[in-house]
Amino acid sequence: MNKTTKNMRDICIKQLVDRGVEIKDIVDIVYDLQIKYVPGLDRSTCENAIMRVMGKREVQNAVLTGLELDRLAEKEELSEPLQSLINNDNPLYGIDEILVLSICNVYGSIGLTNFGYVDKMKPGIIGKLDKMGKQTNTCHTFMDDIIGAIAAAAASSVAHNAEEE
Amino acid sequence: MNKTTKNMRDICIKQLVDRGVEIKDIVDIVYDLQIKYVPGLDRSTCENAIMRVMGKREVQNAVLTGLELDRLAEKEELSEPLQSLINNDNPLYGIDEILVLSICNVYGSIGLTNFGYVDKMKPGIIGKLDKMGKQTNTCHTFMDDIIGAIAAAAASSVAHNAEEE
Amino acid sequence: MNKTTKNMRDICIKQLVDRGVEIKDIVDIVYDLQIKYVPGLDRSTCENAIMRVMGKREVQNAVLTGLELDRLAEKEELSEPLQSLINNDNPLYGIDEILVLSICNVYGSIGLTNFGYVDKMKPGIIGKLDKMGKQTNTCHTFMDDIIGAIAAAAASSVAHNAEEE
Amino acid sequence: MNKTTKNMRDICIKQLVDRGVEIKDIVDIVYDLQIKYVPGLDRSTCENAIMRVMGKREVQNAVLTGLELDRLAEKEELSEPLQSLINNDNPLYGIDEILVLSICNVYGSIGLTNFGYVDKMKPGIIGKLDKMGKQTNTCHTFMDDIIGAIAAAAASSVAHNAEEE
Repeated sequence: MNKTTKNMRDICIKQLVDRGVEIKDIVDIVYDLQIKYVPGLDRSTCENAIMRVMGKREVQNAVLTGLELDRLAEKEELSEPLQSLINNDNPLYGIDEILVLSICNVYGSIGLTNFGYVDKMKPGIIGKLDKMGKQTNTCHTFMDDIIGAIAAAAASSVAHNAEEE
Repeated sequence: MNKTTKNMRDICIKQLVDRGVEIKDIVDIVYDLQIKYVPGLDRSTCENAIMRVMGKREVQNAVLTGLELDRLAEKEELSEPLQSLINNDNPLYGIDEILVLSICNVYGSIGLTNFGYVDKMKPGIIGKLDKMGKQTNTCHTFMDDIIGAIAAAAASSVAHNAEEE
Repeated sequence: MNKTTKNMRDICIKQLVDRGVEIKDIVDIVYDLQIKYVPGLDRSTCENAIMRVMGKREVQNAVLTGLELDRLAEKEELSEPLQSLINNDNPLYGIDEILVLSICNVYGSIGLTNFGYVDKMKPGIIGKLDKMGKQTNTCHTFMDDIIGAIAAAAASSVAHNAEEE
Repeated sequence: MNKTTKNMRDICIKQLVDRGVEIKDIVDIVYDLQIKYVPGLDRSTCENAIMRVMGKREVQNAVLTGLELDRLAEKEELSEPLQSLINNDNPLYGIDEILVLSICNVYGSIGLTNFGYVDKMKPGIIGKLDKMGKQTNTCHTFMDDIIGAIAAAAASSVAHNAEEE
């Protein structure tokens, strides 16, 4: 990871925190996904995996783009009909899921399975984001998928490492 | 759907049955996936969606290819190291999941979420196939993912139709 | 295609025209891509294929999202570092290509090959958009990929239809 | 890269050579793809990029699976209708292109563009494989796409490295 990429990772982490998600919230999900497969897994292994995932350019670009669209939708600065599609998290919109495929795939196809599971079960912070997005004038259409995808990719990275040791 | 495609669909359904999976087993999964979102859903709607999915060329090609690789692995007719990778359902193999992406995606990205969930939870026939593959000299490395993907795509088709009515 | 989807298609076509691309510009590309494979191909067949592609929800959502990001980048209304990444069409950004995969894939994997070719050769309007994006205070980071993807998917649709007749 | 992965890479390279493709044939394509973007590019940089690509598990699995299907089709050991679909390189089969997406994507979405271009232009060894597959009792349905995808991914790796220096 060169200096630009590390710097970009810090910017992405700050943007997540500004919108209410701490790295420890993502650690919770990764840990729960992998503890049954990796006995003795500890939280710092999960955090390192998240840092590896967030060090990738394709992940950083997806985070920056998705969070920007959420922020613009919240401020009602998008033009119609896109404003309504994103703000209402229209189930036929689907661009949120396309965007995060590039995150899921960074450690191979296992990431997709984990993402699908997380997206359906909405554990921890993902469930909270989803509820907030529906109840208040907050838009988390991209955010919840982004967090799910980072957790899914990090879980795959933990699994790969455990497998190859 | 033209005659070739319909004929090809019949061949695929026969191959599934020959390897122990009936359409009604897939209906069970689709119904369970969608009943909470589509009140009053009936089984024939699910079966029609499965038939639509199985009428698509990309789905048929994935079914034919995956089941052939399972059969060849069972008969130990693949060369090494591929024979062991498939026969042991090695978690780092991943081609089974790549192959079925083309099935999941036929009705848009919602299919991926359903697939991930099904792949993790292994409901009904999928859990049975997974167990059989592990216990006996049967190989279902591709089969369980194929069934999961057909169910996931059919569930998406049911969702789309319900949404657009 | 129901009424909402048809209406949405008209909105997308209007947005393309507003940013300098007519359907006939896309017809030019589709025709050139397919004339060597489909003897006697006429332009109206190409136009019908483009209309089918643009009638799909996933295509419409990609068009609306990509053009909005281009417009916002032009008006410098995105926050940094995203503003610079999109405005400079940074080759490591990559979200433009991810976004249009959902367009390429609507008629199967042949679309990807056509897209890659078009993206590299930049025929007709795509080359013009690319140059405009570089020379003036216009941003076509998403636009040129979107046009390429619509042309690629339409070419695949023409190919499929010719094959199945 | 651990010992298993390195060993697996050697097996894959041997399988390519056994079927008529040397690493230097792939170097030719990567060099031609990147020389206009990377002044002073040398062949050893291209070869190193190919070795990095072939060191990835998802690439190795795709190579092993695709070449096996080609070999089985040549020996007419696949069951119908799959035997004919693969042996005739049926343009609607498409699984060859799906399989190699996992190769193209290892260095991000730029790989896809390069793959599409190569798949259409068929430079060097790819054109030869394509012709051989059509004229004689040789099947290269997967082989030509695999070589194109390795070259495309290696070209992307060269581009990424040049960009980040």
